[in-house]
Amino acid sequence: MEKRNLTMLTDFYELSMANGYFLEGLGDKIVYFDLFYRRIPEGGGYVISAGLESFIEYINDLKFTEEDLSFLRKKGLDDKFLDYLRNFRFECDVWAVPEGTPVFPAAPMMTVRGPAIQAQFIETMALLLISHQSLIATKASRIVRAAKGRAVMEFGARRAHGADAAILGARAAYIGGCVGSSCAICEPEYGIPALGTMAHSWVQVFDSEYEAFYSYAKHYPNNCSLLVDTYDVLRSGVPNAIKIFDEFKPSNKSIRIDSGDIAYLTKQARQMLDAAGHSDAKIIISNSLDEHIISDVIRQGACVDSFGVGERLITSRAAPVLGGVYKLCAVEDKDGNVLPRIKVSENVEKVTNPGYKKVYRLYEKDGGHAFADVITLADEPAPTPGNYTVIDPLSTKIKKHLDSDFCVKELLVPIFEGGKQVYTSPPVDEIRRSCKEKTENLWEEVLRFENPHRYYVDLSPKLWELRTNMLQEAHEG
Amino acid sequence: MEKRNLTMLTDFYELSMANGYFLEGLGDKIVYFDLFYRRIPEGGGYVISAGLESFIEYINDLKFTEEDLSFLRKKGLDDKFLDYLRNFRFECDVWAVPEGTPVFPAAPMMTVRGPAIQAQFIETMALLLISHQSLIATKASRIVRAAKGRAVMEFGARRAHGADAAILGARAAYIGGCVGSSCAICEPEYGIPALGTMAHSWVQVFDSEYEAFYSYAKHYPNNCSLLVDTYDVLRSGVPNAIKIFDEFKPSNKSIRIDSGDIAYLTKQARQMLDAAGHSDAKIIISNSLDEHIISDVIRQGACVDSFGVGERLITSRAAPVLGGVYKLCAVEDKDGNVLPRIKVSENVEKVTNPGYKKVYRLYEKDGGHAFADVITLADEPAPTPGNYTVIDPLSTKIKKHLDSDFCVKELLVPIFEGGKQVYTSPPVDEIRRSCKEKTENLWEEVLRFENPHRYYVDLSPKLWELRTNMLQEAHEG
Repeated sequence: MEKRNLTMLTDFYELSMANGYFLEGLGDKIVYFDLFYRRIPEGGGYVISAGLESFIEYINDLKFTEEDLSFLRKKGLDDKFLDYLRNFRFECDVWAVPEGTPVFPAAPMMTVRGPAIQAQFIETMALLLISHQSLIATKASRIVRAAKGRAVMEFGARRAHGADAAILGARAAYIGGCVGSSCAICEPEYGIPALGTMAHSWVQVFDSEYEAFYSYAKHYPNNCSLLVDTYDVLRSGVPNAIKIFDEFKPSNKSIRIDSGDIAYLTKQARQMLDAAGHSDAKIIISNSLDEHIISDVIRQGACVDSFGVGERLITSRAAPVLGGVYKLCAVEDKDGNVLPRIKVSENVEKVTNPGYKKVYRLYEKDGGHAFADVITLADEPAPTPGNYTVIDPLSTKIKKHLDSDFCVKELLVPIFEGGKQVYTSPPVDEIRRSCKEKTENLWEEVLRFENPHRYYVDLSPKLWELRTNMLQEAHEG
Repeated sequence: MEKRNLTMLTDFYELSMANGYFLEGLGDKIVYFDLFYRRIPEGGGYVISAGLESFIEYINDLKFTEEDLSFLRKKGLDDKFLDYLRNFRFECDVWAVPEGTPVFPAAPMMTVRGPAIQAQFIETMALLLISHQSLIATKASRIVRAAKGRAVMEFGARRAHGADAAILGARAAYIGGCVGSSCAICEPEYGIPALGTMAHSWVQVFDSEYEAFYSYAKHYPNNCSLLVDTYDVLRSGVPNAIKIFDEFKPSNKSIRIDSGDIAYLTKQARQMLDAAGHSDAKIIISNSLDEHIISDVIRQGACVDSFGVGERLITSRAAPVLGGVYKLCAVEDKDGNVLPRIKVSENVEKVTNPGYKKVYRLYEKDGGHAFADVITLADEPAPTPGNYTVIDPLSTKIKKHLDSDFCVKELLVPIFEGGKQVYTSPPVDEIRRSCKEKTENLWEEVLRFENPHRYYVDLSPKLWELRTNMLQEAHEG
């Protein structure tokens, strides 16, 4: 697919501020921003990071055209600043969590260090790409887990919020564990299997359901998936499907039911197929599904081999926003000293963590479960087992002494150094595999999609002290 | 902005069906599809149509590349069919409701007539573009109406579901009545005013709030909008803003509050600004807004001049799906006779209206309010005042005899004839104006965003009879 130049897809204030920084002589001042989110959608236990590959592409493609510059001149931006934009070259350092990683509130998913103009400018697209794709990967992960090993197919293109939402949403859903997508373009573009056979209209164009099935089987003898609910699932659809399976003996055969009572219809259809000797025929369900309904129908004994999930996945309908934020956390003075910045709020969840930081994931030595993330200042040593203390920022009286043995992994990896890309996004298949592995490294209790256990994101004592002192100063000032 | 080739953005089943039609010799069979929706999001009274301009572009750009074809060959599609795609030329007739028109459940927003392969193929993108953009235009209209004449600005880019959702969502929001967007690219692309001044990070980069405001005013002396809630709105932000307004006497001055209690803070800030002689300074609010909160704070006497609305608009967060459907309603036999098709369902709302149809909007002769839409078969004469009877399909015992005088307007206009574009999308400003006018043509009771009066979409007696007979036959068969 050709690329579009999305350089001007930015909130206008990024440009008015950048122009201001430039004119103030602050354009090259080094600043640090953290990208993170505050709450997990739908009261869930985790978020799956996604969108980094799109972000890298966006950064590499940044370029202001003469048309852009002449528009910005009309909007009142300074000519010297426009010259700067004409020769724009990205020079920031960027660290980010690889796609497919479970991430938790308040811990940076990305940190950007660089000239104020640049680090500020990329805010809009960084948030847009990472929030959207992480939202959909998370929803997919919830749905796939509810299906308990049954295949989940992403069927939502027609209900997506535009073309990107269909394509990148399908990619995110694949990362979250879907087996493929209805959206054809995703296979040549990303290698995500494109799936789909027939709609009701196919059945209606023929004079009878049997003729419609017959014609389909004739042309697709080895991938014979028949939609059986156009007229009457049990009195017409399934009997006609059985006739076709008898006649054509397709190597891959399935029926799809897109309406009605799933538990009842699938149990009956299963019996009919089995009785006719087609116990290898699969049953696919695809009507208004999400993790709750999938969980319910499995509990009710529905006989389903795979689920096609549409609008509730591709829009994350129950919670269509992952509220990512991008907050200034430090600036450098002329001598390169890092001066932390904090954003205060009456709401403790909205207080930011100041300073240039690192995030570590702690794993139990036995069993390998991840049990907490720890945010430290960047110049601290990594947490080491023995007698390490962490502090929960949401209830700061809780200090925990970690004396058992643990392993440590740094979560943010270098993506750009001085504007140069130093990280290559793995193929999406690999991201999907790694997502499964990293998710299974979490405790079941954290992975529940209702009332999960809170995964701890703690602070190092040094970061906690800095934050406490800065809050105190802010209140006194 | 460069265009992408989105030809392959389609559900794969459109292609497997198209291949099947081709091989069955049904590829050129003439079929009719209606695009419509069944329910208004959030229990609202109307939907604003949008997305037609994008749809026209999509159709004109349809083209299968050799890469697409070689992928489809690998997926098992027939070589002769691939030759057909290689020479693909769109030949359908398309009628659609112009953008910015209020539309109601079950009435076609678009009708497509043409060869089965083609009319089927475009389903995914027709639904995607029109459902998404109509959803956002509708949400914007609700929010703008709640603001009762105050300006509403679209601020959601960072929370949109991808780049298209930000850009086309901003365009849809503008059609629905917003005055502009934070998204810079929308101004050069569509002429939608790009708005925005500063974020909290601007204030934090300077050593004090006053210095931050001072620098901003120096560079933007005539568009001085200051964000006053980084530290403390009433004790720091507003007093500093007043100092700056005194000093620079900007011709356009405003403060923006992005957190806290809107009613309380805006009343206090208004008093402080007025007392300091700045009654011409505007107050802008921008935190988690939607039509309900806007309505509430206005009722509480908040002093707000304009609202910046983000995620709840750009994702239509409370209801992020407009469930558009695209249903086969007729086929032609070899002699060109139109044979209606119906999709039956136990749910009366899901039964489709069969046949090739037209939609008329009826306006009162006095006052000009639109009071009902009537769907007729295409070969019927337009409704004429005098003694015209209509039937409500949802409670079919209600026949209404329209004996008062009325005017009639056909809603669906020709967009493509034999694949040739015959309609030019008006500039977005004109669509926005026409949207306002057409919306104000509806009764207040229909426009309420909570518990609105249902606007009637009735059937002509002939269509009702056809539908009833076909339903009867389906039940007996």
